[in-house]
Amino acid sequence: MPRTGLCRHTHDQIFYRDKSLVDDLMGTAPFSAVMFRQILNRDPSIGEQKMIDAILVTLMEHGMTPSAISARLIYMSAPESLQAGVAAGLLGVGSTFIGTMEGCGQLLARIVDHGDQAREMQRIIHEHKLARKALPGFGHHLHKPDDPRATRLLNLAQEHDTASRHVHALRRLSLEVDRSHGKHITINATGAIAAILADIGVPVAAMRGFAVVARAAGLVAHLVEEGRNPTGRFIWDLVDHSIPFEADTPVA
Amino acid sequence: MPRTGLCRHTHDQIFYRDKSLVDDLMGTAPFSAVMFRQILNRDPSIGEQKMIDAILVTLMEHGMTPSAISARLIYMSAPESLQAGVAAGLLGVGSTFIGTMEGCGQLLARIVDHGDQAREMQRIIHEHKLARKALPGFGHHLHKPDDPRATRLLNLAQEHDTASRHVHALRRLSLEVDRSHGKHITINATGAIAAILADIGVPVAAMRGFAVVARAAGLVAHLVEEGRNPTGRFIWDLVDHSIPFEADTPVA
Amino acid sequence: MPRTGLCRHTHDQIFYRDKSLVDDLMGTAPFSAVMFRQILNRDPSIGEQKMIDAILVTLMEHGMTPSAISARLIYMSAPESLQAGVAAGLLGVGSTFIGTMEGCGQLLARIVDHGDQAREMQRIIHEHKLARKALPGFGHHLHKPDDPRATRLLNLAQEHDTASRHVHALRRLSLEVDRSHGKHITINATGAIAAILADIGVPVAAMRGFAVVARAAGLVAHLVEEGRNPTGRFIWDLVDHSIPFEADTPVA
Amino acid sequence: MPRTGLCRHTHDQIFYRDKSLVDDLMGTAPFSAVMFRQILNRDPSIGEQKMIDAILVTLMEHGMTPSAISARLIYMSAPESLQAGVAAGLLGVGSTFIGTMEGCGQLLARIVDHGDQAREMQRIIHEHKLARKALPGFGHHLHKPDDPRATRLLNLAQEHDTASRHVHALRRLSLEVDRSHGKHITINATGAIAAILADIGVPVAAMRGFAVVARAAGLVAHLVEEGRNPTGRFIWDLVDHSIPFEADTPVA
Repeated sequence: MPRTGLCRHTHDQIFYRDKSLVDDLMGTAPFSAVMFRQILNRDPSIGEQKMIDAILVTLMEHGMTPSAISARLIYMSAPESLQAGVAAGLLGVGSTFIGTMEGCGQLLARIVDHGDQAREMQRIIHEHKLARKALPGFGHHLHKPDDPRATRLLNLAQEHDTASRHVHALRRLSLEVDRSHGKHITINATGAIAAILADIGVPVAAMRGFAVVARAAGLVAHLVEEGRNPTGRFIWDLVDHSIPFEADTPVA
Repeated sequence: MPRTGLCRHTHDQIFYRDKSLVDDLMGTAPFSAVMFRQILNRDPSIGEQKMIDAILVTLMEHGMTPSAISARLIYMSAPESLQAGVAAGLLGVGSTFIGTMEGCGQLLARIVDHGDQAREMQRIIHEHKLARKALPGFGHHLHKPDDPRATRLLNLAQEHDTASRHVHALRRLSLEVDRSHGKHITINATGAIAAILADIGVPVAAMRGFAVVARAAGLVAHLVEEGRNPTGRFIWDLVDHSIPFEADTPVA
Repeated sequence: MPRTGLCRHTHDQIFYRDKSLVDDLMGTAPFSAVMFRQILNRDPSIGEQKMIDAILVTLMEHGMTPSAISARLIYMSAPESLQAGVAAGLLGVGSTFIGTMEGCGQLLARIVDHGDQAREMQRIIHEHKLARKALPGFGHHLHKPDDPRATRLLNLAQEHDTASRHVHALRRLSLEVDRSHGKHITINATGAIAAILADIGVPVAAMRGFAVVARAAGLVAHLVEEGRNPTGRFIWDLVDHSIPFEADTPVA
Repeated sequence: MPRTGLCRHTHDQIFYRDKSLVDDLMGTAPFSAVMFRQILNRDPSIGEQKMIDAILVTLMEHGMTPSAISARLIYMSAPESLQAGVAAGLLGVGSTFIGTMEGCGQLLARIVDHGDQAREMQRIIHEHKLARKALPGFGHHLHKPDDPRATRLLNLAQEHDTASRHVHALRRLSLEVDRSHGKHITINATGAIAAILADIGVPVAAMRGFAVVARAAGLVAHLVEEGRNPTGRFIWDLVDHSIPFEADTPVA
């Protein structure tokens, strides 16, 4: 039967799961802790709370990304709807960049669930080589030789004692990847985040949600800046003048 | 000239404004504090930090709202895109429900900027009566006689010493509203939030951004629940069977 | 009571309003005619059909617009969701560019509903001068001295005999605008479309819908092209390198 | 090098590919023909034009679908943004319902590209049985024993002489499916559309675009109706009251 455990309300009370919003959460619980509770239906430990904050902060911003550019252009076109600019930008939290988090999460699940982890790692590396596909969670076009966010996140997870089977699997997989490629390939931020969230118990299908919330905050900052220092018209002209018209052949 | 002050990155560093993401923010700063910094370009005080968390927590969730229903239906239709479900839901953070925050923010700005505040309040109440429009920030269809979230938020703002001219204006406006209507009309959550954010220095045009981020978190929780206990098909059938077909007259 | 007159279906039939989809519409009715029927609940005349096609064709495409750039960037980020790219782009059909259609529609309604049309035109021109706001439906940053689409559309409306009170009001308003500015200001495409749709009987609040559908088709073409000749990565790099980082002052 | 073949414009001309918008298209070309040209970069034949119209008309409307419900709820929440309601609804044109068009398109491509078509059909049926997955393009929860839209579309394709290898493959696959299941399973509308579009030369990755445009038109009609006969508040209350709160177990 359809039901929800997230919220109920009466004339003078609102409950978020089993807590009173007004009496138990407002004024005491940080936003990220309540978000954690609503998604996972339990309180985070102190270490988990630290890691969720670190992950959300990491995913908030990366400059003039496709998401940020789109959000700014849409906000220029519909300044009455800040939410539309954010929504347009969030639609870019798709498979190309952020989906790698889930791809990596699935690989790590395969490894930790397998009796012979070393062999499963070999199989994973072999499969991706054969298909000439990048291994999700590894490599970065900009941050080389190491993605500083991944290094920091993995150290924090150790320090706050949330690192467990998935983080260990990721570290071992990284050694195998380097050996197999004959050079160092960085663990990227989405790879580290996938491992840390998996150790905390976040289902693979929910991981992208943390990127969505973090990026929403980053995009709001972009749109507030856009309102003060507009870039939209400049971007439009720049792109329009830089992509020439050229007659094409029929598609079909 | 177009420019951005939000983020810059090199091969081994990422800066959020003037701070190093890796060295200064990850592991130390809570998500809501970094969000505040990115939007307002300064650190929150301890009291402001508390208020931002309380406001974000308040705006996160209100059960099966139009936003949540839409997010769930879109997620059922495109489960490969959790971000699309969230984006669809966020598009509901529009003028009808959340836009009242800005409406109230504008009224409070009119009051505090005016030499004769008492007279400006009278004028505002009169204008809305004349136009038969609800006063933004006042009244709630469910939470009567008082919206418990507003009461709590205003008390917290007093306690954390962020309440200033706009909160005071709201409280005085509330007394005038009650007198003028001959009965008590609640200050609602969006009214209290508008006043508190205005006292913190959030521009009216940026206020909606806090609702967008908070609601994004709430919607992620809805979609994770939807993945475990689907309601989408039930909602579809329920609505389809409850709205009968009836031939209509031409529009034009 | 809630009801719908748009569609009903049984095991072996689907009705679009009062017509059988399979027996009455498929294979005989053009897409734009069925769209017209569904929106306005009557059949278009032959002239109206011509005008709706001309208007939809006009609104389909204008090159690398903010909508098209956003759609392409989101499609690059989430190629599994062509619909997300289109949706992101459509969110740009907002007040800045397309909303002028409604603005112009409202002015024309004021004029035709007024006893002394000449005086109402003067009042409208005066109001906009005073507020230093552009008159919706007039002027174009690129197409000068005349927007060729507007000229053609107004001629077509004459030819197909759909031009009536609103088109005449627009033509007379245009003469007044030129006189008042002491130079020729073009009627732009959205101005002409507003007048023509109003004469057909399309409510002002529904006008934007024609832009949405037309632009959806244009954006699909952009995304199919993007799949064959990607521009997304180029746009991203171009924008990222062209907007420098510069530390900013606090917002508040 | 990045380039576009879709549109270029000067001060007094706009070109859609190689045609002048004003001189060649407005007033002569139907919307669906121009859409076809922009997407496929060639003119449709008379038969292809008929089929594109029939397909777009078929995909426009199916009553109170998840897309339509979402569009209406978002429009209620943000009536200033008709485009946001449409965008929210379009996000539902995802894998669950419409994605089957591409799934079927891929199967038909496998069949027609294979030397031994009969054997490839057996393999496809076997694979889906093994994986307990529905065969895309077959079956409908409502329209039984036959989806009347599919029957009509396939007859029209025959009549207009666009039916070729993919339609024939679909008909033969249908016979195999019936034999293998020991009962008749309908070819559904998305299956028929996939075959017809493939015969016309539409790439599988572009097929969804036709659903997006058609549905955009349907959603505009829903929102115009919603503006006249609101259902949003009714839907909200109905759903809120029909899904009870029940405490849940932790996710992790």
